[in-house]
Amino acid sequence: MIVVKVGGGEGIGFGALTEDVAALAQQGSQLVLVHGGSHETNVISTALGKPPHFVTSVSGYESRFTDRETLEIFAMVVAGKVNKLLVEQLQQKGVNAVGLSGADGRLLEGKRKEVLKIVEDGKRKVLRGDWSGMPERVNTGLITLLLQNGYSPVIAPLAISDAGELLNVDADRVAAMVATALRADTLILLSNVPGLLAKFPDPNSLVRQLPRNRLEDGLQAAQGRMKKKILGASEALDGGVGKVIIADARVASPISKALAGEGTVIQ
Amino acid sequence: MIVVKVGGGEGIGFGALTEDVAALAQQGSQLVLVHGGSHETNVISTALGKPPHFVTSVSGYESRFTDRETLEIFAMVVAGKVNKLLVEQLQQKGVNAVGLSGADGRLLEGKRKEVLKIVEDGKRKVLRGDWSGMPERVNTGLITLLLQNGYSPVIAPLAISDAGELLNVDADRVAAMVATALRADTLILLSNVPGLLAKFPDPNSLVRQLPRNRLEDGLQAAQGRMKKKILGASEALDGGVGKVIIADARVASPISKALAGEGTVIQ
Repeated sequence: MIVVKVGGGEGIGFGALTEDVAALAQQGSQLVLVHGGSHETNVISTALGKPPHFVTSVSGYESRFTDRETLEIFAMVVAGKVNKLLVEQLQQKGVNAVGLSGADGRLLEGKRKEVLKIVEDGKRKVLRGDWSGMPERVNTGLITLLLQNGYSPVIAPLAISDAGELLNVDADRVAAMVATALRADTLILLSNVPGLLAKFPDPNSLVRQLPRNRLEDGLQAAQGRMKKKILGASEALDGGVGKVIIADARVASPISKALAGEGTVIQ
Repeated sequence: MIVVKVGGGEGIGFGALTEDVAALAQQGSQLVLVHGGSHETNVISTALGKPPHFVTSVSGYESRFTDRETLEIFAMVVAGKVNKLLVEQLQQKGVNAVGLSGADGRLLEGKRKEVLKIVEDGKRKVLRGDWSGMPERVNTGLITLLLQNGYSPVIAPLAISDAGELLNVDADRVAAMVATALRADTLILLSNVPGLLAKFPDPNSLVRQLPRNRLEDGLQAAQGRMKKKILGASEALDGGVGKVIIADARVASPISKALAGEGTVIQ
């Protein structure tokens, strides 16, 4: 069982990815895909006159401030556009994909984090009315029901709160939680970088192996969204996943290459 | 087993609908929801600088010309926004909804109709590059798998072609096909009119009963989108569905009222 997270970032086509999924599925691998959609959300929300508003938390993580209007745009883009275009490409290659969001069948339950504590212009601020959250529980029943019946789940990064509110959740953390809940052998985090770079953005500084007892060093080296990947990797390993590979989505056969050790292997 | 189609038309909130679904589910009814999203697609596509282009076929039916860009906006709106907001409202009311489109798990297979024969300014024309189609087969396996495991399916009007192309399909026809495939007792088509009006738009001209042998008269009286509802009703009755009720979505308990005979009952 392999869980693969693919970004919705700029410059990532899904052609190579979906071909690789089809090849691996034919060889008998069980794959669950989790995807993002951040870049496409920026494009659409800007076109709709609602440009994205990114904030940095007091603990140094960047995230999208998600008011209700932004939540609905985010849901539209990730669960409607990115998810269905992935399903279409997989279906074209013979993979019987079923696209879901974490709200469907309460696949991902989480707590809404309505108040964000951020740093802006060097000052601490409190932002209210946010519709994002952290996934806390995975309904593995629905995922295994689909897998056992020959369907390949493709999961968009939404969750549902206990009160039934739709939430924007981080796709890397979602992938880590899903991999943990499914006791996956491997979690692969694909994006538009070759892996963790010790000297970002120098591609020659790729960290090939990161032992789990040195994850703190990795977190120090990580820039921007890579921080969340390292955090996700840490959570997945703590949860019993065998290894986590952070690898490049922009190459042919990206999953197979990651499985062959190209990228940053964390175990 | 009841199949309910709810429009995505202007002025239809989902509050009353989802409350009614929750109440009926608690009483033991098995419900499958199919929804549209045409109005919201018009709003979003116009905001994105791609206003909708409606055409009238040579046989007199109105439809959206769906080039590839429009298809992706349509998919985004129906499978991302309308579908997930419905799922959210159902989850808030205790219904464990799973939102799907007809492309997921090949739920709805159809043929792409790439060429449209239309009438514009009194002249016959041929339009190419359309991404719509007619649903032809329903994968009841996925729907019953979900129902049997306690999930309530909510279906967005997309289908998948044999070649794996995403297609825009008519939600009324989809609901009719799903009702037929599931051998539903009742198909309810809700929208922002009280039913079939003999003298459109006079609400006092509501046709309360339409025997199936007089469907042709109904088709003559029907205006605009009502034509497709009558056609869908005809297909469902031919397919073995017990009765079809065309009713008002804008009232409290719209499904229960339709079941009690408010609207146009066709059998």
